[in-house]
Amino acid sequence: MTDLSPALPVNGDRLVARLKALGQIGALPEGGVCRLALTPEDGAGRDLVVGWMREQGLDVAIDPIGNIFGTRRGTQDGPSVMMGSHIDTVATGGLYDGNLGVLAGLEVLQALDDAGIATVHPVTVAAFTNEEGARFQPDMLGSLVHVGDLPLQEALDTISIDGTRLGDDLADIGYAGTAALGGIKAAAYLEYHIEQGPVLEAEGIDIGVVEGVQGISWTEITLSGRSSHAGATPMRLRRDAGLAAARIAHGVADIAKSIGGDMVGTVGSLRLRPNLVNVVAEMAQMTVDLRHPQEKVLAEAEARLAALVARVAEEEHVSFTRRQLARFQPVAFDRDLVGRVEHTARSLGLSTRRMFSGAGHDAQMLARTCPAAMVFVPSIAGLSHNTAEYTAPGDIANGLAVLGTLALELAGRANSPA
Amino acid sequence: MTDLSPALPVNGDRLVARLKALGQIGALPEGGVCRLALTPEDGAGRDLVVGWMREQGLDVAIDPIGNIFGTRRGTQDGPSVMMGSHIDTVATGGLYDGNLGVLAGLEVLQALDDAGIATVHPVTVAAFTNEEGARFQPDMLGSLVHVGDLPLQEALDTISIDGTRLGDDLADIGYAGTAALGGIKAAAYLEYHIEQGPVLEAEGIDIGVVEGVQGISWTEITLSGRSSHAGATPMRLRRDAGLAAARIAHGVADIAKSIGGDMVGTVGSLRLRPNLVNVVAEMAQMTVDLRHPQEKVLAEAEARLAALVARVAEEEHVSFTRRQLARFQPVAFDRDLVGRVEHTARSLGLSTRRMFSGAGHDAQMLARTCPAAMVFVPSIAGLSHNTAEYTAPGDIANGLAVLGTLALELAGRANSPA
Repeated sequence: MTDLSPALPVNGDRLVARLKALGQIGALPEGGVCRLALTPEDGAGRDLVVGWMREQGLDVAIDPIGNIFGTRRGTQDGPSVMMGSHIDTVATGGLYDGNLGVLAGLEVLQALDDAGIATVHPVTVAAFTNEEGARFQPDMLGSLVHVGDLPLQEALDTISIDGTRLGDDLADIGYAGTAALGGIKAAAYLEYHIEQGPVLEAEGIDIGVVEGVQGISWTEITLSGRSSHAGATPMRLRRDAGLAAARIAHGVADIAKSIGGDMVGTVGSLRLRPNLVNVVAEMAQMTVDLRHPQEKVLAEAEARLAALVARVAEEEHVSFTRRQLARFQPVAFDRDLVGRVEHTARSLGLSTRRMFSGAGHDAQMLARTCPAAMVFVPSIAGLSHNTAEYTAPGDIANGLAVLGTLALELAGRANSPA
Repeated sequence: MTDLSPALPVNGDRLVARLKALGQIGALPEGGVCRLALTPEDGAGRDLVVGWMREQGLDVAIDPIGNIFGTRRGTQDGPSVMMGSHIDTVATGGLYDGNLGVLAGLEVLQALDDAGIATVHPVTVAAFTNEEGARFQPDMLGSLVHVGDLPLQEALDTISIDGTRLGDDLADIGYAGTAALGGIKAAAYLEYHIEQGPVLEAEGIDIGVVEGVQGISWTEITLSGRSSHAGATPMRLRRDAGLAAARIAHGVADIAKSIGGDMVGTVGSLRLRPNLVNVVAEMAQMTVDLRHPQEKVLAEAEARLAALVARVAEEEHVSFTRRQLARFQPVAFDRDLVGRVEHTARSLGLSTRRMFSGAGHDAQMLARTCPAAMVFVPSIAGLSHNTAEYTAPGDIANGLAVLGTLALELAGRANSPA
């Protein structure tokens, strides 16, 4: 490995312009973007990104789950230095989540071109399919298939919240590719992402050095009671699935608060049937999202949730079923690579803070097969999965400089500095 | 008024057959019926009922809000003895709620024809528009317009949960009538209905003698928080509209249980936005249905709800708006007419129990302009607003005998018994 190279002359303004251009696809009237995985909007976003890859002369490969890889060749063959993230969004998404990691990778490659720098190792930019999990579960599906931990056929047979099959949607938008699954090997994986939380802004820190990702547990709970007249059914004779769901949602917050620290618990989705003002609900379906950096604490929260559901169901005389939608253990990133993120940022004069990610990221899947790390920059007001998601151009340029400088260092210069 | 007549020879089997025939329109695969007000299914149900009215030679009048009146003339003109209810249902309705009161009225008139009985006063069967309030609010809208307490134009401009205008839907199904509003006067109003609660069955009583209707308060509450990432947003920094809604729904049940007695409180409808597993909800919209037979207690429950909403909103850092969807004070039916229901039932050898209705009924609107009363029969397991709603044929025949016998007594025989 060569000595630390001087900072790569990346262009933050060009990156911000591309973020805005991509954000036009699926743009919402109130700002923000809705580009749910494998919808026509996602297809159009992919077309734009792949177009940029081809303009930059990259070798584009699309695998059978729709993951997109754009590779700039090195002077040697072999594993790539991989940068990447995803371009699907939640229904009320912003311009930065995921998109930043992909487009910053392209900007790094453009900066290498502009500076006339050849690298020893190939450098690849990856955009993974369905990271959000908003339309298809589990989330991080594309990177999970990429690393070989979810069979392709099972992933293709996943049914969306709209009732469609993933494989069919993928074919409809033209991204059922033929490149070999896992064919592009990574020597290291770097994911540049907004924090999606309020900590960096609150503490005035430039760069979050991500040590790992919280464990994630998603459960769907379906409660079955008895539909009855809201006026003529005494409270004691009810089997109110809606009330049971409300008590569980309330209890999930209490569990998270009583465990404290980094523990979070969320009921983001809740539906009642028949959902009418004067009818006691016969059915309620809800999701519970639990996260913590330590497996032991996460498991404790899960056990307390299970006890809560059983107790409330018994007290409200409803039956229930549970279905695990996703379960990821906490992930620790490669200690050496994390240290190099920190060192690179400091060498560029940026302040840093080590932290765990509260959100899931493709990096946690890649970490199973290669050293991986992440670079965080502040999210204003901690907003993400929100149309008002925003990161200032200066912060975007800071993270881009860290990413580009470290990627070049990892890939190795094959020619002398200009 | 004549002496008590012998029981009118009504035909319960014929009534049950008509209930089943009407229940075919909007029939659900799992049983029960969905004939929401002013949908094409409601239109088809109306066509069937009006067809039966015409077959029976009744004078059919349809007013501008779509209320249907079928009148059998008396030997004298003047106010009618009116029987009636409604034929719209909730989304998961049964065959009996409302339909029983309308079709039993037609059966009474058929029995008068079959027995060759003429009455002094006219006898009218009424089917009022949108009693349920499941698609348009407020409920009991047609009878409220009929008695003059809701302006016609305001009613016609009501917007459905589907976003359509009531007047347009009414015209689409061909029931924007031209008969004068309130043109058919009632000397008395009798509504025969299933109990919709579990009390008569539990106590083994044949006939519920309804003294009045609980007061009803419907409120829609909209909570506005901030959408944010479910993993990266610490609990203390959230503005979770979904959690606020769950706490309020939980609290509504606690208010009802702590007041006790006849108090009921229901959150039947609750929607989150964006309603995704990994996004803290930015918006929650919910309904609260409160009912009690005493105005003072109902008002206390409303005050406690208001305090609950304000407290939860403050603690969860969300804002809120409230909208009153419906508010009806408790109603006491005419004491003399209630006594005659009880006396008629007992004279027919049936057991009786005085009770308040927990549900709203058109009778409470009619009670503003004439003596009104109701006859209840058992609902098996208390089920109503439920596809499994059921009342046994023997119970249906019991109530029909009470209705027919009392209606004939009120209308007066104009010829000698055969």
